[in-house]
Amino acid sequence: MNVLVVGANGQVGKLLVNLLRDNKEHTVKAMVRKEEQADALKKMDIEVSVACLEQSVEDIAQAARGCNAIVFTAGSGRLTGYDKTLLIDLDGAVKTIEAAELIGIKRFIMVSAIQAHRRENWHEKMLPYYAAKYYADKMLEQSELTYTIIRPGGLLNEPGTGMITAADDIRSGKIPREDVANTIIQSLTEENTYYQSFDLVAGNVPIRKALTLL
Amino acid sequence: MNVLVVGANGQVGKLLVNLLRDNKEHTVKAMVRKEEQADALKKMDIEVSVACLEQSVEDIAQAARGCNAIVFTAGSGRLTGYDKTLLIDLDGAVKTIEAAELIGIKRFIMVSAIQAHRRENWHEKMLPYYAAKYYADKMLEQSELTYTIIRPGGLLNEPGTGMITAADDIRSGKIPREDVANTIIQSLTEENTYYQSFDLVAGNVPIRKALTLL
Repeated sequence: MNVLVVGANGQVGKLLVNLLRDNKEHTVKAMVRKEEQADALKKMDIEVSVACLEQSVEDIAQAARGCNAIVFTAGSGRLTGYDKTLLIDLDGAVKTIEAAELIGIKRFIMVSAIQAHRRENWHEKMLPYYAAKYYADKMLEQSELTYTIIRPGGLLNEPGTGMITAADDIRSGKIPREDVANTIIQSLTEENTYYQSFDLVAGNVPIRKALTLL
Repeated sequence: MNVLVVGANGQVGKLLVNLLRDNKEHTVKAMVRKEEQADALKKMDIEVSVACLEQSVEDIAQAARGCNAIVFTAGSGRLTGYDKTLLIDLDGAVKTIEAAELIGIKRFIMVSAIQAHRRENWHEKMLPYYAAKYYADKMLEQSELTYTIIRPGGLLNEPGTGMITAADDIRSGKIPREDVANTIIQSLTEENTYYQSFDLVAGNVPIRKALTLL
């Protein structure tokens, strides 16, 4: 597939675009917000489009042209206010969904957060963030897209193991970012993940097998 | 109807509970967050239940017991952060919708904001607020409830005139809070407003007539 990675300057995003660049089955286009982010990616031989999630649906659609899959792994991060949580993590995600619908991109993978689907288990100190993710996920589930919602546990920077646990309801856990990126890539064409949402933590089943067991 | 007013300590909410108390067709229960707010309302001979929109769906449902309609006119206001915009204006609204579904209350009126349904017309300085209202409204439209979404223009404290303009798409305008409260009351049993969402500003058509023309 030709995959647009939205949030390509994030920690999962950077791993993902590098893995996709080296993957023979897929090509990648990175969407980033700033020209200097674009320059850094271009130097790594990655195609880039510059667009901001606070721009219009049409602008995001323009950035996505030529792709047939979108991975949304953007986030406003911990350094900005909750206004950006609303405008990026929620509304930016939904605008990206609408952009996909606008130009007929069917395949959409959302990177969410563990237990975002269960309000009673939202992380006490991150309630507004979880609320934003919850509604972005809801809107994707109610869209016409061929979605997969991946809800990873606490993200680690250590190397991936290729071994995961994926299930509808995992109360807590952690996972290396590299394993999240590889789970996204394996999910792109794994039909068993279509219209599925799942929690994801480190485990003892190879990624491809775990996805067929969902 | 026996109407639960969520946000009864707000400016529209206060007008609404007073008008409903004096209305022969309806009875009212006011939901407020603090005991001192409850005391003030009880002195005005209004039934009150104390519950906070940051509590659980079950707590809100408990507060709504005995009612057969809910009006949501709560808002976190301008003095709190955007974390509360997410947790009250959006998630609190959706928890109230879920509470209604939980105990079988079908009739639900949401007080939204003019043009909240059109992202391109959101008020530049209030984008996060509009985003929260947009998604709360979306979730209500996708619920099983008999909803009406009323999107008033700029709210005025002057006395109502009883004359409004209500339509699917009004770009801007203002309206006295008293006319908003009376439009809510007239909508409760006006079947032509069921499953409808409309902008509302001051106008030249009597409220009841305007609602039958939607």
